[in-house]
Amino acid sequence: MIEITLILDNKNSKPMYIQLANHIKQEILCGRIKPNEKLPSKRNLANHLGLSINTIQSAYEQLSAEGYVESKPRKGLFVTTVNHDLKINQNQSCEKVDSKTKLIQEKPMIDFNSGKVDLQLFPYSIWRKLTLQSLYEDEGKLFYMGNPQGEVNLREQISAHLYASRGVRCSPEQIVIGAGIQVLLGLLCLIIGKEHTYALENPGFHRTRITLQDLGVQTVPISLDEDGINITHLKKTDANVVYVTPSHQFPNGMIMPISRRMELLKWAEEKNRYIIEDDYDGEYRYKGKPIPSLQGLDKNEKVVYLGTFSKSLIPSIRISYIVLPSSLLNRYEEHFTIYKQTVSRLHQDTLFRFINDGHWDSHLNKMRTLYRKKHETLTSAIKNLLGEKVKVIGQKSGLHIVLEVKNNMNENELISKAASKGVKVYPLSIYYQDGLQSKVHRILLGFGGLTETEIHIGIRLLKVAWEL
Amino acid sequence: MIEITLILDNKNSKPMYIQLANHIKQEILCGRIKPNEKLPSKRNLANHLGLSINTIQSAYEQLSAEGYVESKPRKGLFVTTVNHDLKINQNQSCEKVDSKTKLIQEKPMIDFNSGKVDLQLFPYSIWRKLTLQSLYEDEGKLFYMGNPQGEVNLREQISAHLYASRGVRCSPEQIVIGAGIQVLLGLLCLIIGKEHTYALENPGFHRTRITLQDLGVQTVPISLDEDGINITHLKKTDANVVYVTPSHQFPNGMIMPISRRMELLKWAEEKNRYIIEDDYDGEYRYKGKPIPSLQGLDKNEKVVYLGTFSKSLIPSIRISYIVLPSSLLNRYEEHFTIYKQTVSRLHQDTLFRFINDGHWDSHLNKMRTLYRKKHETLTSAIKNLLGEKVKVIGQKSGLHIVLEVKNNMNENELISKAASKGVKVYPLSIYYQDGLQSKVHRILLGFGGLTETEIHIGIRLLKVAWEL
Repeated sequence: MIEITLILDNKNSKPMYIQLANHIKQEILCGRIKPNEKLPSKRNLANHLGLSINTIQSAYEQLSAEGYVESKPRKGLFVTTVNHDLKINQNQSCEKVDSKTKLIQEKPMIDFNSGKVDLQLFPYSIWRKLTLQSLYEDEGKLFYMGNPQGEVNLREQISAHLYASRGVRCSPEQIVIGAGIQVLLGLLCLIIGKEHTYALENPGFHRTRITLQDLGVQTVPISLDEDGINITHLKKTDANVVYVTPSHQFPNGMIMPISRRMELLKWAEEKNRYIIEDDYDGEYRYKGKPIPSLQGLDKNEKVVYLGTFSKSLIPSIRISYIVLPSSLLNRYEEHFTIYKQTVSRLHQDTLFRFINDGHWDSHLNKMRTLYRKKHETLTSAIKNLLGEKVKVIGQKSGLHIVLEVKNNMNENELISKAASKGVKVYPLSIYYQDGLQSKVHRILLGFGGLTETEIHIGIRLLKVAWEL
Repeated sequence: MIEITLILDNKNSKPMYIQLANHIKQEILCGRIKPNEKLPSKRNLANHLGLSINTIQSAYEQLSAEGYVESKPRKGLFVTTVNHDLKINQNQSCEKVDSKTKLIQEKPMIDFNSGKVDLQLFPYSIWRKLTLQSLYEDEGKLFYMGNPQGEVNLREQISAHLYASRGVRCSPEQIVIGAGIQVLLGLLCLIIGKEHTYALENPGFHRTRITLQDLGVQTVPISLDEDGINITHLKKTDANVVYVTPSHQFPNGMIMPISRRMELLKWAEEKNRYIIEDDYDGEYRYKGKPIPSLQGLDKNEKVVYLGTFSKSLIPSIRISYIVLPSSLLNRYEEHFTIYKQTVSRLHQDTLFRFINDGHWDSHLNKMRTLYRKKHETLTSAIKNLLGEKVKVIGQKSGLHIVLEVKNNMNENELISKAASKGVKVYPLSIYYQDGLQSKVHRILLGFGGLTETEIHIGIRLLKVAWEL
């Protein structure tokens, strides 16, 4: 068994499990713990270090999440064959340390993850107060099963908010709440029908594609032009359902102009055609005038609108929703109310109170200002430091941009060179149905979870990494 | 527009919306509001009565849940064609009342709903305290997206609990948490494969059948004998996956004996065969010795165990889980971690604390005692009052029984006669794949949500209703 021995620092501002995970990570990076070696069992290591099993677990989970170790069912946790690009601090900190007396400091990784949001400004105390109100309310009432569509009062708030901020016209009866877009897409696909062909933006949101394909649905990739999905291409296919992200195309970031929206709605006028409009981060727009949602422009009840509180509120409470046009609402009511609501009724009630008391609007305003500043920092750092050697794509809204890098490196090289300087950037190829890795000289930069300083440092490091 | 006018009583112990719903219900039952009439819009009625829109909503939702009204999309709320059997209080309370000065008192309905649980003994204050701890913990950490399988510390607690109380042997790595059995069954069906034929108990749990069929999976109904699923019948089909409820067959209630369990495990030894063991209320057993779960008896990694906190803790927080054998776990890890966790991370953390601090065990013990008393009250009331004219089926465990009534009434008659005396009992035919309504002289009685007094009154009323 590998021996892991270190003295953890109680006064260190980092939690114990992070200190432990960092120590093990360092041992792996320095080669003192070898690939394919088995880590001690949680119980053994807990006894050995005098720590709780939970601390060990959390450390192991962290290592696993970062890809340093992987679990083999019923066998245990094993060190992965570490990508050597990850060994970023080898020179600095792999001196022969005595881990009993010295704690390893690791350079922070600047992570341009597009799924991260900033929770620094989240009004925790208000949320706690409202959570308690939900728990005290009519003791126990909210503990019994609720409406399969979700709580009426929350749906009323969502409906009012959608009208005011996104131009979506719907009654609360048309809204179905669910625990995330994947759950709701699964349901929606059953309501619309699995026998149809679903057209998807290419590149597009990979979770949608995989969810639909896993359900056994035929999908067809549709190319994009500068205005979004290519209608000429769409018309050539036998698809009668199309999934689009018009407010901020994922991942390319263009905003679909009104003319293209009207063309798409025109396409959908045919019998049995539907548009699924995913407005995953439409709250955040930095340039240009607001364009009404497809749902708001639709006169023929052809658009299903999808929204989420993950980007704009709290990712981990898992509250999303779909707005059904009347023909699909009828089908839902006839058959699908047998599917129980998937979101906790208590969270629904707390969110209702949060919106009802005006906190949601003021939080959104604060976040818009914050993200606008981060966005400006990012785009001006790119302009000043990387200049003509890169092209920024899709910068008018949302929490990420796409960067085309003109240095002849392919996607893999761009990512691994960045990692060698401690910067994590993300591939674009996974969003293509056919995974066009080599052709793409582009990567994805999310900025929601980084501070302005981190964004600055990140871009400076990328300049060096990519030799620009 | 219908005119609805009444004076609500602030000092009445019933909430306003209940008073309003009761009033409208009475007006419908007395025929003063006619079938197919449209109710006023929420806004209009709120203005008219000087109440909040929320109160009107809640009242309308209540009426809708009870089947008195139904919403037609974009048209409004309409009075349904009320079953005349429901007009239970017509004689007593349909005198020409002046609703402006008198509030209608309605007789309580005794509802033998099998989905109800008793939350009287739920330790609300502890749950509140732990919820606050989760919200304060490492500010914000729990607000970011967590592990797709669910929190490690909660999975550790579940794994320990399952071993101690249900004989399930698993590591936390094998557990996937999800927002309800329907979500998890959908995922499981993708992991196992939709190309297989799934055998289902007949009668059996209708939500499982519908979930699988909606996914496009071939299902085959398998008859039951007194020990549970009929293995001879199962062997004659081409099914290679079987879904069973061995701890307490739903709805018939038999506990599968060890010999049948071994036979079923033997059947599953063939390549690509799996057993899905749904232990939905296995915590509650009143007679006989505990029998280990199929998962615990399985030597060949052929059993997927399904569990839920809905029956034993709080229905509305939506926490269930599956335990995957290693071959399926591999498939899950290869492809399905792209599906995000559907349960709120905060609730997962609170539940972890609740179990970790021992509250779960003590709550379960209290609930076992409580349900045992209710169960005794029910079975002895049936024995004393209904005697030889009925047969009780499946009374050794769980929160419901099946009653066979020997008075030549069919299911519909049994239900409507009971309703005419203010007692709600439930059909068994919906649990048959082929809906054998007329042949069945049986109904379902759930007792979890009723007090002992209500159970007594309910059985007395059934004696009269069914002329026993």
